[in-house]
Amino acid sequence: MLKNLNPYLNAELLHVLRSMGHGDELILVDCNFPSDSVAAHTVSGKLIRMEGLNVPEVAEAILSVYPLDSFVPEPVLRMEVVGNPDEWVECHHEMKKVVDKTSDREWKFGSIERHAFYERARNAYAVVCAGSERRGYGCFVLIKGVIDEKGNVV
Amino acid sequence: MLKNLNPYLNAELLHVLRSMGHGDELILVDCNFPSDSVAAHTVSGKLIRMEGLNVPEVAEAILSVYPLDSFVPEPVLRMEVVGNPDEWVECHHEMKKVVDKTSDREWKFGSIERHAFYERARNAYAVVCAGSERRGYGCFVLIKGVIDEKGNVV
Repeated sequence: MLKNLNPYLNAELLHVLRSMGHGDELILVDCNFPSDSVAAHTVSGKLIRMEGLNVPEVAEAILSVYPLDSFVPEPVLRMEVVGNPDEWVECHHEMKKVVDKTSDREWKFGSIERHAFYERARNAYAVVCAGSERRGYGCFVLIKGVIDEKGNVV
Repeated sequence: MLKNLNPYLNAELLHVLRSMGHGDELILVDCNFPSDSVAAHTVSGKLIRMEGLNVPEVAEAILSVYPLDSFVPEPVLRMEVVGNPDEWVECHHEMKKVVDKTSDREWKFGSIERHAFYERARNAYAVVCAGSERRGYGCFVLIKGVIDEKGNVV
């Protein structure tokens, strides 16, 4: 364990988050997502499985250290419900709360159709699976931003 | 880069620090230490080279997240000057300042003879070399402590 760090940030997850740079994309998904097969195509080839945790719990750990990207209009993308792309399900609302809670500003969410999400995820840096997230559409793209020389998110 | 973290904590160093548990020992050394050959014998087999940094700089990064061990009387050990084991050289004094600055209490320093240090280091978890530390005897054992359920160092 380490001081001043969310205890869910294990060695593998910290390694992935710190290895990423500006514009790299992290995929955070629920237990039904094809995590392993998609992760195999990513830049790092890594799937970080967080058993026993749901999406808001993993998101809060990640976003305690991970800066979102102010260079794009929507640095968080949610997977759209099939047949109802504008619907916000429970996981989407909860992710919004976590993003707001862990940020110094309000970030806009975008959305992406299910198969387009899979394709985008294959080109991401890595996949993190919240192993105990049983709710549907708990799938997000998180685009990494920049920390300036004073330690602030740009 | 990550929010709320010392920028010198790179992916490999974070991975090592988070992988360690209570009682595991980290070795922090200057540029003359036989880092590579000693690291090959450690538990992880890892040498983390921090080029461009001196011992106090690397120590401050490590100790911003790494808890020292309250279960032992001396959780920091300095390498003794050959022929003058009680002498505190500049690196020793500077390390004391960093340990005090990054802690909620005063930790006691122990000391260890040069060859005993090598032997101890071979049984440690990993070696971190401050590549730009040119001063002598900038060599330390840091014994890892415990974080309680509230996030405090025990």
